[in-house]
Amino acid sequence: MILIYTAYSRGYSLSYIVKEMPMSSSPQHKMTNSRVVLKFGGTSVADLDRIANVAEFVKLEADAGYGVVVVVSAMAGETNRLVDLVHRAIGTGISVDSNLREYDAVVSSGEQVTSGLLALTLQRQGYRARSWQGWQIPLKTSDGHGRARIASIPDDVVGAAVDSGEIAIVAGFQGITEEGRISTLGRGGSDTTAVALAAALGAERCDIYTDIDGVYTTDPRISSNARRLERISYEEMLEMASLGAKVLQTRSVELAMAHNVNLRVLSSFADPKEARNGALQPCTVICSEDEIVEQHIVSGVTHSDSEAKISLMTVPDEPGRAARIFTELAAADINVDMIVQSAAKTAKAANISFSLDEADVARAQELLATLKQDIGYTDVVADRNVSKVSVIGVGMKSHAGVAATMFQTLAERSINILNISTSEIRISVLIHSEYTELAVRALHQAYGLQEMAETS
Amino acid sequence: MILIYTAYSRGYSLSYIVKEMPMSSSPQHKMTNSRVVLKFGGTSVADLDRIANVAEFVKLEADAGYGVVVVVSAMAGETNRLVDLVHRAIGTGISVDSNLREYDAVVSSGEQVTSGLLALTLQRQGYRARSWQGWQIPLKTSDGHGRARIASIPDDVVGAAVDSGEIAIVAGFQGITEEGRISTLGRGGSDTTAVALAAALGAERCDIYTDIDGVYTTDPRISSNARRLERISYEEMLEMASLGAKVLQTRSVELAMAHNVNLRVLSSFADPKEARNGALQPCTVICSEDEIVEQHIVSGVTHSDSEAKISLMTVPDEPGRAARIFTELAAADINVDMIVQSAAKTAKAANISFSLDEADVARAQELLATLKQDIGYTDVVADRNVSKVSVIGVGMKSHAGVAATMFQTLAERSINILNISTSEIRISVLIHSEYTELAVRALHQAYGLQEMAETS
Repeated sequence: MILIYTAYSRGYSLSYIVKEMPMSSSPQHKMTNSRVVLKFGGTSVADLDRIANVAEFVKLEADAGYGVVVVVSAMAGETNRLVDLVHRAIGTGISVDSNLREYDAVVSSGEQVTSGLLALTLQRQGYRARSWQGWQIPLKTSDGHGRARIASIPDDVVGAAVDSGEIAIVAGFQGITEEGRISTLGRGGSDTTAVALAAALGAERCDIYTDIDGVYTTDPRISSNARRLERISYEEMLEMASLGAKVLQTRSVELAMAHNVNLRVLSSFADPKEARNGALQPCTVICSEDEIVEQHIVSGVTHSDSEAKISLMTVPDEPGRAARIFTELAAADINVDMIVQSAAKTAKAANISFSLDEADVARAQELLATLKQDIGYTDVVADRNVSKVSVIGVGMKSHAGVAATMFQTLAERSINILNISTSEIRISVLIHSEYTELAVRALHQAYGLQEMAETS
Repeated sequence: MILIYTAYSRGYSLSYIVKEMPMSSSPQHKMTNSRVVLKFGGTSVADLDRIANVAEFVKLEADAGYGVVVVVSAMAGETNRLVDLVHRAIGTGISVDSNLREYDAVVSSGEQVTSGLLALTLQRQGYRARSWQGWQIPLKTSDGHGRARIASIPDDVVGAAVDSGEIAIVAGFQGITEEGRISTLGRGGSDTTAVALAAALGAERCDIYTDIDGVYTTDPRISSNARRLERISYEEMLEMASLGAKVLQTRSVELAMAHNVNLRVLSSFADPKEARNGALQPCTVICSEDEIVEQHIVSGVTHSDSEAKISLMTVPDEPGRAARIFTELAAADINVDMIVQSAAKTAKAANISFSLDEADVARAQELLATLKQDIGYTDVVADRNVSKVSVIGVGMKSHAGVAATMFQTLAERSINILNISTSEIRISVLIHSEYTELAVRALHQAYGLQEMAETS
């Protein structure tokens, strides 16, 4: 049994408080065969034809002698259908939050169906396979229904099954609470199931099959120059995942980093016959920084359109006012990202603006309205028409001038920067949404990402 | 914990080997509040509007102070959709039998969804409710996947929950095997879940809500004179269920009889507002024979069209030949119903014919082909164009002439009787399918079922 602790990351400032029992402490791992974990997302198992294609990739690993664990999502569209049923059962105006236990019971059924269907598909072809629901493993989670955190995964039962040559098909996204109720891990949670299993079982690698063949330098729909990265560090991938690259759930990358899981992103839409014939499948390897020989200063440009900006006008410039605002917002579980304070027209007053998730705007406005008297601002203005564009790269740590290049590139296109935030390996700016595509393309070009990808 | 043993009934000769711990041995039952079990079938929970209607019936019982257990089926059509996915995953020409564990994992998800949705619907209206999957209770079954038998149900956890005022919404049709895998109880299994829970929890009654308001003297689609029975004995209901009346799963009636569960069949399509206003809802009560004051000789006429007849021509008339045939068929799990042996044209030979389920004809023919040499018959003829018509009534035990009336009625309509079988409370005949409706109407008339129902 390996215990997995991960900190809940609030907003985009990710912090990892991860304790782990080192893999090598369990002698079983050394004695057993090599194991791999393969994860297939919703579009990869969208129908029975796609599931048959998935079976080909699974058989490839089984035939190579690996102990194979497969993690599956619900068939594409199924989770949305179930979520819709839940919302209609609850009715309008009532939050799903108070009923998350039942939400989880309903929504987790999608993965259950896929796991059975893939097991049947493999059995038909003469392979030993069985489905595992979260509660059968048991994959224990916190009781934070709807976005539970994995608490522990025993490595004995599933491990023994795969070592015996039986393919384990695990229903992703779900677990069981201490109380014995079904829990789910939030959207994209199957990625986390896969990585956690890979960590618990000491898997040689964890392959995330999706509908694209890796992680790109930027969104290919925006820039035709976007190029697949051969390798990216966990840290960079974390920032990418948090900042709009949808390829992996943020938490799964946190876990992979904490447990040093060898992670790959590749496409299930590739031809498994070619892979069987020895063709190398394109992919992106996500690994620790020191495994990347040729380090690039900037690895990618991301954008997120689900941003908004709220400005409080003419806040009296007295100590404690700003602190009060952000304390109350934090207490209400509203994540604030970039904060700017600027002089107001009135003397001894400031305008305070901050960016936040678009989905939280209404709640933030309600909260701020109740504080108007206390804070003493004159007006509150919300702007949903903003985007966040970020450049990410571990090379920033040691290279100066990355920010300067960014600001200059945007200035040359007359793109106004509303807010700025940075981390050690990231610079993000808030801009008006209409400039998003222009900014992404210009930055991609400015950092030479096209050439880098071509030669890497 | 109550252990529930039921014999597997082979064919239509039902035998009950039922042991039970008497309800009164558990003092808890006396101390707790009165409990009721309500079961709602697929058409009763077909969509969210129907589920909202179900909630009204549930609230009625909760408001009356009962501890309420609700058993739900999958939303109408959902089980078929899932079964179809399984069959397509397995592919053609391969039996689902070898993959029944995964069949169960997939198909049981339908009830899981309904249980969550009904719990949410009740929570929305301020009622405490929670879903229970089979494995959470845990409702333990045999490992006969796809048609598992209930082995035991603990009465403590669910019992305590409903006594505390929380409505328990149980996913019907499913349980968990000793091995920890999901099992299902066969078509109509939710009826059995409901009755077993009623027995285990010592419920005051078990109400089976369906799309008709009770058990009828015959199929209302065939005879407009069909009338709802106010009461019917377990024994009669068992025969009715086995013989084509689809209102209850046979096994659920066996269980109700064994544990003396007070069973009612009523319609969820009735208006719950009227029931709330005190209107008596039409229903059929299924109870022990001695609770039925005015006993009728014949209670109902049923028909089953899924019958077939196989004839073996010119079987040498030597001891052991017939025994060999039926031993082999039984070993292959093919249920044989009515057997007729008649003189063949050849001397010292007989023609042997028997009726069986239409679905078993192909298997039976294959088996008989392998025995041709051994048995020495000249020819085998299968006729799928036959129906079984039965009259049922506990009054037959003490009244002569029931069979005579049947044969005379059919003879008057020139309906040829192919085979006959009887039990203490039933007479069945095999006839050509084209006469089914005529026979049912004529018999319904001949036994005065129309008048009986009107005055009962």
